[in-house]
Amino acid sequence: MDSLEVERTTTGWAARDPSGLLSPYTYTLRKTGPEDVFIKVIFCGICHTDLHQVKNDLDMSNYPMVPGHEVIGEVTEVGSDVTNFKIGDCVGVGVIVGCCRNCRPCKSDIEQYCNKKIWSYNDVYTDGKPTQGGFAGAMVVDQKFVVKIPDGMAPEQAAPLLCAGVTVYSPLTHLGLKQSGLRGGILGLGGVGHVGVKIAKAMGHHVTVISSSDKKREEAMDHLGADDYLVSSDATRMQEAADSLDYIIDTVPAFHPLEPYISLLKLDGKLILMGVINTPLQFVTPMVILGRKTITGSFVGSMKEMEEMLEFCKEKGLTSMIELVKMDYINTALERLEKNDVRYRFVIDVAGSKLDQ
Amino acid sequence: MDSLEVERTTTGWAARDPSGLLSPYTYTLRKTGPEDVFIKVIFCGICHTDLHQVKNDLDMSNYPMVPGHEVIGEVTEVGSDVTNFKIGDCVGVGVIVGCCRNCRPCKSDIEQYCNKKIWSYNDVYTDGKPTQGGFAGAMVVDQKFVVKIPDGMAPEQAAPLLCAGVTVYSPLTHLGLKQSGLRGGILGLGGVGHVGVKIAKAMGHHVTVISSSDKKREEAMDHLGADDYLVSSDATRMQEAADSLDYIIDTVPAFHPLEPYISLLKLDGKLILMGVINTPLQFVTPMVILGRKTITGSFVGSMKEMEEMLEFCKEKGLTSMIELVKMDYINTALERLEKNDVRYRFVIDVAGSKLDQ
Repeated sequence: MDSLEVERTTTGWAARDPSGLLSPYTYTLRKTGPEDVFIKVIFCGICHTDLHQVKNDLDMSNYPMVPGHEVIGEVTEVGSDVTNFKIGDCVGVGVIVGCCRNCRPCKSDIEQYCNKKIWSYNDVYTDGKPTQGGFAGAMVVDQKFVVKIPDGMAPEQAAPLLCAGVTVYSPLTHLGLKQSGLRGGILGLGGVGHVGVKIAKAMGHHVTVISSSDKKREEAMDHLGADDYLVSSDATRMQEAADSLDYIIDTVPAFHPLEPYISLLKLDGKLILMGVINTPLQFVTPMVILGRKTITGSFVGSMKEMEEMLEFCKEKGLTSMIELVKMDYINTALERLEKNDVRYRFVIDVAGSKLDQ
Repeated sequence: MDSLEVERTTTGWAARDPSGLLSPYTYTLRKTGPEDVFIKVIFCGICHTDLHQVKNDLDMSNYPMVPGHEVIGEVTEVGSDVTNFKIGDCVGVGVIVGCCRNCRPCKSDIEQYCNKKIWSYNDVYTDGKPTQGGFAGAMVVDQKFVVKIPDGMAPEQAAPLLCAGVTVYSPLTHLGLKQSGLRGGILGLGGVGHVGVKIAKAMGHHVTVISSSDKKREEAMDHLGADDYLVSSDATRMQEAADSLDYIIDTVPAFHPLEPYISLLKLDGKLILMGVINTPLQFVTPMVILGRKTITGSFVGSMKEMEEMLEFCKEKGLTSMIELVKMDYINTALERLEKNDVRYRFVIDVAGSKLDQ
């Protein structure tokens, strides 16, 4: 196949500096190697992490940077050793596109915890070139990090599942919190939180959304199907709800006190942190000790869990709630995301934005 | 049995006010009820919590208060429905002497987490009278909260196991950390820490003692049998030891940073807090999230775990390291304990102090 030996370019939208403003940027894609899948991007979700990255909030950004790690695309070419995918498949790519394959996490199929994992963008690939994400016309990705989107699932709905979805699904699975009848809390109703409500409900849990204000009560209860809604400043209701939850998925991406939420947990309850927060969070030990409670966290999910989660969502008819935008709206979308002004995930209609034409 | 109907007195040493000074105090014991065991106290360990309690550090002390919750004694009388014990048995009493028997923890045999648990001292019993602990000639205790000391185990050695021992054994069991070959850390080498090293070694773990100074290196390695010793201020060694431990038992009873210790944990590693610390502890979330690490805590252990732990210690020939003192040394012992000047647990020779004569 001649096409495997030709270098091609694609056009994405890249941040050029910590202003975080994105603009068109054309770059070379690597040759489609034996294990690689060439993917024409169709949709890409916008995650809160993308905001951090384009603005260098984590002090580790390299420019030009094409973000995007909730990528849905169509396979248009496969390497000679690719067995899992064929041309025309609808596939997804998440946060990770490489790992060492030899360490304990890799050998345990939790490659997301490999110390040598390669991020979908703002990282360096094995060929020494920068990785670039899904805000672009195309990507070349090792088949290990590509997942099949189940037939019958709307691809634009699937995009947010590739990061937000698996980020919620993985710890619930890993911590033994999948069985129905549990009582869960979702703290924060953004991109991850809204998928959290849906996945927890699909697992048969009683779901309480916990928020700092009353603003999202109606949408949480009526649109997302939550069973209860707690305003964290309502001391009476918070007191009544003490010792009632098996877990809380804490999606808040900024400093917040932990004690009010630890109080809501039952004996052996688990506070599962998802927000990357560099300001230290605090707690006093008696609350943890006397209820044998756990503070933990979890980072996206493995490729295995990604597959399992997509099947689960398909089976349960679970869809995300998105606002579809064109690529040239990206800077406005990022601005709005920063203000939490989106219900609940922006997804870019990449194919419809005709970047590579 | 007439004796069951007679009220008797015993003499203990009680704190009278937050000065925490103990002096002799004579009080009435309840009648030995059908489920009760009358215990002549032989030995009683001194726990760091006793210090907090006598000095009202937790702002919940009632006086006069007879401390002591690592109680070893001889059964001298049993109630009509007592089936597990007979006169002459060597038994132990720990931190809890009552629970509701109806809640989820009680029904799951983890009665130490019952919200209505009754503490061995500084609490109110079901008859409305104050509970008083083992720094006294005798105690009357419900058989549910009495444990048999295995034959062949030196009773003075067993005393510290009833709180410090089970406090370490319970979380290692509960968290699935009993199997041999694990790598554990013990942070702080006091009463709980020294038993922690011994129990972890007896489980077949590779044990690293972590301390703020080099002072205890020799005793940790040579006397307690630890495999490694880390000084937390030694940045090079701490860096070398990053990602190496399956768990850390953190016995430090005062504010300390958590990050240096979270760094030592492997993927899925667990930081198990034992110290009641009312100053908030801090951590940043990426350390927890990117290594799926857990911060948790645990409160003593159940009566079932107490039995299991004593059998385990007997089988492994595990003994604690104690300094045996008479009751009239108690105020000096408490002063020394406050300065951590004891290797590693004071045990009061209560019988030898002839309180009830």
